Amino acid sequence: MTSLARALFAPRRIALVGASADASRLTARAQIHLRRHGFDGDILPINPGAETILGERAYPSLDAAPGPIDHAFILVGAERVEEAVAACARRQVPVATILADGFAEAGAAGAARQQRVLAAARAGGVRLLGPNCIGLINVPARIALSVNAVLAMEPPLPAGRTALISHSGSLIGAILSRGAARGLGYSVLAATGNEADLGAADLLAMLAEDGGTDVIALYLETIRDPDGLRAAAARAFAAGKAVIAYKLGRSAAGAAMAVSHTGAVAGADAAVAALLAASGIARLDDFEALIEAAPLFAKARPLAAPRRAVSVVTTTGGAAALVVDRLGLAGIGAAEVRDLTLAGTRPDRVAAALGAAVADPRSDAAVAVIGSSAQFRPEESVAGVLRAAADAPGKPLAAFLAPDAPESARRLAAAGIACFRTPEAAADALRARLDWRAPLPPVDAGDVAQARAAVGAIAGAVADEWEARGVFAALGVTTGEAELVADPDALARIAARLRFPVALKAVSAALPHKTEAGAVALGLGDPAAAAAAMREMRARLAGVTLRGFLLMPMERGVGEVLLGFRRDPQAGPVVVLGAGGVLAELMPPPAIAAAPLAAAEARRLVEAAPLAHLRGVRGRERGDLAALAEAVVAVSRLAALAEVAEAEINPLLVRREGEGVVALDALVVRAEERAGARSNRDLP
Amino acid sequence: MTSLARALFAPRRIALVGASADASRLTARAQIHLRRHGFDGDILPINPGAETILGERAYPSLDAAPGPIDHAFILVGAERVEEAVAACARRQVPVATILADGFAEAGAAGAARQQRVLAAARAGGVRLLGPNCIGLINVPARIALSVNAVLAMEPPLPAGRTALISHSGSLIGAILSRGAARGLGYSVLAATGNEADLGAADLLAMLAEDGGTDVIALYLETIRDPDGLRAAAARAFAAGKAVIAYKLGRSAAGAAMAVSHTGAVAGADAAVAALLAASGIARLDDFEALIEAAPLFAKARPLAAPRRAVSVVTTTGGAAALVVDRLGLAGIGAAEVRDLTLAGTRPDRVAAALGAAVADPRSDAAVAVIGSSAQFRPEESVAGVLRAAADAPGKPLAAFLAPDAPESARRLAAAGIACFRTPEAAADALRARLDWRAPLPPVDAGDVAQARAAVGAIAGAVADEWEARGVFAALGVTTGEAELVADPDALARIAARLRFPVALKAVSAALPHKTEAGAVALGLGDPAAAAAAMREMRARLAGVTLRGFLLMPMERGVGEVLLGFRRDPQAGPVVVLGAGGVLAELMPPPAIAAAPLAAAEARRLVEAAPLAHLRGVRGRERGDLAALAEAVVAVSRLAALAEVAEAEINPLLVRREGEGVVALDALVVRAEERAGARSNRDLP
Repeated sequence: MTSLARALFAPRRIALVGASADASRLTARAQIHLRRHGFDGDILPINPGAETILGERAYPSLDAAPGPIDHAFILVGAERVEEAVAACARRQVPVATILADGFAEAGAAGAARQQRVLAAARAGGVRLLGPNCIGLINVPARIALSVNAVLAMEPPLPAGRTALISHSGSLIGAILSRGAARGLGYSVLAATGNEADLGAADLLAMLAEDGGTDVIALYLETIRDPDGLRAAAARAFAAGKAVIAYKLGRSAAGAAMAVSHTGAVAGADAAVAALLAASGIARLDDFEALIEAAPLFAKARPLAAPRRAVSVVTTTGGAAALVVDRLGLAGIGAAEVRDLTLAGTRPDRVAAALGAAVADPRSDAAVAVIGSSAQFRPEESVAGVLRAAADAPGKPLAAFLAPDAPESARRLAAAGIACFRTPEAAADALRARLDWRAPLPPVDAGDVAQARAAVGAIAGAVADEWEARGVFAALGVTTGEAELVADPDALARIAARLRFPVALKAVSAALPHKTEAGAVALGLGDPAAAAAAMREMRARLAGVTLRGFLLMPMERGVGEVLLGFRRDPQAGPVVVLGAGGVLAELMPPPAIAAAPLAAAEARRLVEAAPLAHLRGVRGRERGDLAALAEAVVAVSRLAALAEVAEAEINPLLVRREGEGVVALDALVVRAEERAGARSNRDLP
Repeated sequence: MTSLARALFAPRRIALVGASADASRLTARAQIHLRRHGFDGDILPINPGAETILGERAYPSLDAAPGPIDHAFILVGAERVEEAVAACARRQVPVATILADGFAEAGAAGAARQQRVLAAARAGGVRLLGPNCIGLINVPARIALSVNAVLAMEPPLPAGRTALISHSGSLIGAILSRGAARGLGYSVLAATGNEADLGAADLLAMLAEDGGTDVIALYLETIRDPDGLRAAAARAFAAGKAVIAYKLGRSAAGAAMAVSHTGAVAGADAAVAALLAASGIARLDDFEALIEAAPLFAKARPLAAPRRAVSVVTTTGGAAALVVDRLGLAGIGAAEVRDLTLAGTRPDRVAAALGAAVADPRSDAAVAVIGSSAQFRPEESVAGVLRAAADAPGKPLAAFLAPDAPESARRLAAAGIACFRTPEAAADALRARLDWRAPLPPVDAGDVAQARAAVGAIAGAVADEWEARGVFAALGVTTGEAELVADPDALARIAARLRFPVALKAVSAALPHKTEAGAVALGLGDPAAAAAAMREMRARLAGVTLRGFLLMPMERGVGEVLLGFRRDPQAGPVVVLGAGGVLAELMPPPAIAAAPLAAAEARRLVEAAPLAHLRGVRGRERGDLAALAEAVVAVSRLAALAEVAEAEINPLLVRREGEGVVALDALVVRAEERAGARSNRDLP
């Protein structure tokens, strides 16, 4: 652990700035919780009006407090936080957690106040957690540095090897209490509040080095630093840890609420899903699965080649069907369902059947579904599962308990076996486990050197089509034959090498909507027709600065697609792929993936995209989907070119199998100076 | 209650056929459970080898047992069940429940055995529950007539006004134990097993008359009798009860497992959803929502005009966002989210805010989201909710508890307030409550009299196109101008009144695929062209018996749809509506609804169907969707014509707004003698 991580997660001398002697007040809670849950380091309550607070010697100011201070928990109101941070700076406190709300989540004035606080911290070398942050808990180290109401629970807090980083402080309480009821414990639980300075990605990077943590669970309301999250997740993965996440904002209403709740930014949920997948983060859609799935991921690696099938062993066919049905909705089949029936609750029979299930090469995971014995005979009911887990480790093993059976759940948890209370959580966790993949590697700089040069050659903020074609060609996308000519005379000179009929387009960065502007003419059969069209177009576009005219042979293919690239506010660089041309509005919305993509991911995107018109249905020809996937890989490399904000090929013509694809129209929008550099660290 | 219902649910003298004196055996359990849970009527154990069993006087045979017997629970092996049923018949036992498996769920031999048992019962006037049935429980009457392992729980069983009818016996245990942990009780809980005789629909019809039941929850693995289910649900609705259902088989894997588990039939899940909606049954997708939602439906009626919005009052914004996000995924908005924050846990503040939420005319329901106070101060945390419910009844009110807080859940349950443990269950239950509608009325026989006559006039099993056009025209669908002629000479006589260009089709019930058979010619510009095409067609179809040739003016419109009708194995009559013609394979699959539909439901189906090509996107013309909805209503009336198995208009041409729709090609398939009459009652 770095010294910052130690000061943040494992401080030995803690100042409580604004501590209260009134035990009923929120500002007294941190001190009460720290001592109640066994903190044996130094607490320095700071309060100008008291000599002792809750039995500890108090100090009138940080300046008056003796000795080094590892971590300050600032409990004063929003208007006094800036001053408190400045005091931290004077005392060289490395990190301060800020409780108060009334900052970026509370409108423009609050955002300005947050900026001032951050500036004070930067100037003084103090790192911040929060504001609007309820604090953090380090269970093994007995540091309950938080005002979280859940800390009213009886000590000891449930300890485990799962860490939790949460944008919501209150959900830390919900998760800790629900985990405790199941016998699931935690290592570190940290709320991040408004993330003025340290954010979820920073904490993830620090916990990647934590020897006491195997699984890092993220409860995310937004993503403020997609690049940072991706890098931190890669570090965690490399350190042998698994990262799982629940991300709020799957619906527009939820996203809007996250924005109002913590001043977050909204992005497209599909893009977020793509980012998490590409980052090697397993996303859970079911809230309790975030709690219950942890053992499925502890000390685990992604499956090499998932068969998307599980083996089920059950003592109750009815309940097994609940899980199988839910798995089916996620596209996961049942390789086998072995129903031992009532007679099969004997541990040796369960162990034998589960052992066979674990060994079954047709399945990725084994699931034990336990009926009423889990309620009335917990020890016997889980004994077979425990034995199978001990005998045949390796394949993911999970249990679903049909009745209300907390004692059986705790026994399974104690043995490190994932146990689920609902069929929805069980199926969601298994789905996430099977879908989990290693983080994708970043783009090799050499692969985009040419494209970078082509982008550098763009004159304005938006490329004209000739420039845009150059960028895509440099990335490796076929842009087809084309000639750029200045006028009909130039056309006459090259007409002999043109393949008629041709399409004609006026080339100008000032013409983003060429068709509407009358800057496109199609199917011109010979040089004379092309020259006439060019003259008409020139006259129509009088006043528009043109680079010239583009002449391209008319192309035929199986169908058109839209292949786009953009930078999502939450998810960062993404590619989108959907039907092009007139079909675009009739077919489902484009599929999305986080960029860059390797070949396998690009093929998956092509499979997932709404491209029925290219798949050879009902006697149609099949398009060259392999070439399309290659184009997706090429375009996705724009992720590495921060100078590109947005790009699109629409249409990209997909020819018959084996005949490739060709870009018929191209758009590239350059990033403005600061775009692409969204991290809070760049704030003044 | 009928005398059958009394014998089934509230017997006073119960014979246990095959009772065991060995308390460790399954066959001893019913007797143990009955006495343990307080049954004070007569138990008559039948066992040739014992004089007393578990302290009760036993009898060697049913014939030897004294006095009238209300209900026999047959516990013997499958091979001896037929004999036991015959004995029940001799003793005029009105109803017998059969425990044994090895019947229809176990292959052809089992199915044959089930038929023999059913025949014996029919012959002797005995009604059957099962086989493969674990029994039933009547909590208020203290009748635990079941071998269900859940009855090992401590008496008293949790009593309530929710009944449960379940295809799965073991899930009765899961539901009862989960309900008990939440303070939710039941009236009657009955497993139906293989439904050889009495099925879920029959039990539903009986419980519709039960004065001790407000809500009837169905756990369905299949639907064997859609018409019966619909009729029974309508009775329950008319009696002021609400019916809620969880239906297995949303995925193909789950459906397959239900088939293998209870010998059920598989149908399309979308059709099942449509049947349940049309039956006035609220379907829940989340398993625990089936348990937790009951209070939302008790003594309730569907909302007259749902705004699809809820008001949320919370003491913890983070947890409220979980629910709001999930509701958003179901298309339900948050009219307001009022965050009282930590300071707002005072009951008077919660009550005031919830009171305002209940009064808010913008929302359909109010949701209280309670944070950590629910865990540590249950009484205080729910007090405000209880007060609001008492002060302002009427609007659905639900609570979601963020932490693990069973005591708060029980307090809310005791007050009849729906309380949810997971955001998924909360959102699913609210969605189901808002989606809930009254059962649709059946078709008026007068509305289909003409169509019935038209179907009666069909010569064969499949109508030829002229006959099919007649059926649809009788239903009220515009079939457009058309002339049926025998030959080119006949054409010449009517040519003057034809509007050219025309389409020409050979009419024969032997030509279901006309295009492939060369039996269609389009765009014939004048009488000579039509006559020539007719001669060619006649030559090409030599050997096919033709009724004649159909001549129809070529029609133009905005786009084509497929409008179909069929009888689903589980769901009964349904209409399907999707894109027609070449777009059909490119666009999402058709939408489905249970037939018949009233005007409002037909408009909803049109809205839900994949008909982007008719909605005026991007400068396209908008189709006459109002006329399309009228055509849907008309076609859906085929539900009342059991003699029609399947029908389809493809394409149905949709013209511009105000210009109507016209059927261009029609198909009607008659039902075979027994089709449409699928009830088990019709078995020999």
